[in-house]
Amino acid sequence: MDVRQRIDEAMERAMARTKVPGAPPLLAEAMRHALFPGGGRFRPRLSLAVAAACGDDAPAASDAVAVAIEMMHCASLVHDDLPCFDDAETRRGQTSVHAKYGEPLAVLTGDGLIVLAFQTVVAGAAAVPDRMVRLLDLIGEAVGTPRGIIAGQAWESEPEVDLAAYQRAKTGALFSAATMAGAVAAGGDPEAWRRLGESIGEAYQVADDLRDVVVDPDEMGKPGGQDAALGRPSAVAELGLKGAVKRLEGLLADGVSSIPRDCKGREMLRDLILKEAQRFLPKDLAKNAA
Amino acid sequence: MDVRQRIDEAMERAMARTKVPGAPPLLAEAMRHALFPGGGRFRPRLSLAVAAACGDDAPAASDAVAVAIEMMHCASLVHDDLPCFDDAETRRGQTSVHAKYGEPLAVLTGDGLIVLAFQTVVAGAAAVPDRMVRLLDLIGEAVGTPRGIIAGQAWESEPEVDLAAYQRAKTGALFSAATMAGAVAAGGDPEAWRRLGESIGEAYQVADDLRDVVVDPDEMGKPGGQDAALGRPSAVAELGLKGAVKRLEGLLADGVSSIPRDCKGREMLRDLILKEAQRFLPKDLAKNAA
Repeated sequence: MDVRQRIDEAMERAMARTKVPGAPPLLAEAMRHALFPGGGRFRPRLSLAVAAACGDDAPAASDAVAVAIEMMHCASLVHDDLPCFDDAETRRGQTSVHAKYGEPLAVLTGDGLIVLAFQTVVAGAAAVPDRMVRLLDLIGEAVGTPRGIIAGQAWESEPEVDLAAYQRAKTGALFSAATMAGAVAAGGDPEAWRRLGESIGEAYQVADDLRDVVVDPDEMGKPGGQDAALGRPSAVAELGLKGAVKRLEGLLADGVSSIPRDCKGREMLRDLILKEAQRFLPKDLAKNAA
Repeated sequence: MDVRQRIDEAMERAMARTKVPGAPPLLAEAMRHALFPGGGRFRPRLSLAVAAACGDDAPAASDAVAVAIEMMHCASLVHDDLPCFDDAETRRGQTSVHAKYGEPLAVLTGDGLIVLAFQTVVAGAAAVPDRMVRLLDLIGEAVGTPRGIIAGQAWESEPEVDLAAYQRAKTGALFSAATMAGAVAAGGDPEAWRRLGESIGEAYQVADDLRDVVVDPDEMGKPGGQDAALGRPSAVAELGLKGAVKRLEGLLADGVSSIPRDCKGREMLRDLILKEAQRFLPKDLAKNAA
């Protein structure tokens, strides 16, 4: 089965809970709108690629991890798009959740996705209970405070910000969780996969900062120029355009070189990362970085 | 140790995660503001009382459940107070989280508390892994969709609402989880404790509807008249004042009578519930209901 199809089918299974009789239908619709059609699904694809490299002997657990990580990511996007944050009308080329369903349902959609992500891991890892606790720990840390996405977003409300800590939390943490939890789901050693996730996460954040400056909104599917407009920390503001591109190249190279040498899926993973770099980079910068 | 002290100390232990070096300090402050000094802590006290009645042989798990349930409750209050919901400036007699820390941190405080609640259960139930999965299931169901708090709040955005389903989800679900998870934490049978939680939850919601109509804001610690002003479903609107009081009395009696006969802590639980009824009811209605 195609990986994208595997992710979407696993997500549909997890979403079944939202559509049973007696469930509020607009919340189910809004949660679906946040998850589908989705962006590149890079985090869950990365997670499944690492699980595959580690043998993928408990595919239900691997699926659950991939879905949970994507749900956490989507939850953060929905809340990040709220009027009190970015006030974004569009996301992934379609109307943002709050613009389509109103702010109250957008708040609840994010909340609901966070809860459903945990429920998905509990259900999916039931057959490998010894791995479940570590998976829940990894995902909780990637999302909560002090070093997860929520902490990352919270740094935007602080008077003083450490750019590296901010980006590690806001973006890097979920990528590290994607690689490390992908490994744990398949019985692998999470530490062997930490650096890959961290490097890609940092690279992704730098790419996002670059996109915010140089890409037109139609290509991005969301408004541009937000970092400068909102005075947010940004790699471009700190390092300049060239410096940011150089940093990004170094991070990708670092990530690829950290893939364990004895890993069967090494080539596949390398290809995934470089292909993804082409996708998430501004088109006119992609050639240099790859 | 006093139960209130036990709850607050367990909560402090769980909150330690928010204050480590590198954590965004305002988020930690806002999360603390949402949890302390707290209201009556009725849900965690109920949960611990049921755990005690079932032997409380794994106190770290009982503590974790009590704390997690209170955190989920506080998270829902913080989000419910946001401008896009009730726009409440006060809560529990102090400034609401969004009024004090701004909307972005209020959204993130709710998110952070949801995540921390799950982390608290995972950490606290580590010594009784066979119970952990059931605890996570119970708490997830009490909070998520289709029948938890988030679904309950979402019903307020639906064009048509079933009052009973709405109240069960918005308030009852967490009370059921308090009694049932309290039992599971101590190795008890959750089903024997479902009706107690359901009855108290319904009674509490009816009392809340009554308070919204007849109590002055200073006594409540939050603004009154919100249900009518926002056109929200309410037991008072449906049954009238007298009808709502009668319903509340019936629910409390039903709850007390459902406590298992062979339970050692029966008298203690009965006293807790009736004392609590005095506290959460409008003063001039409390005598009749008790």
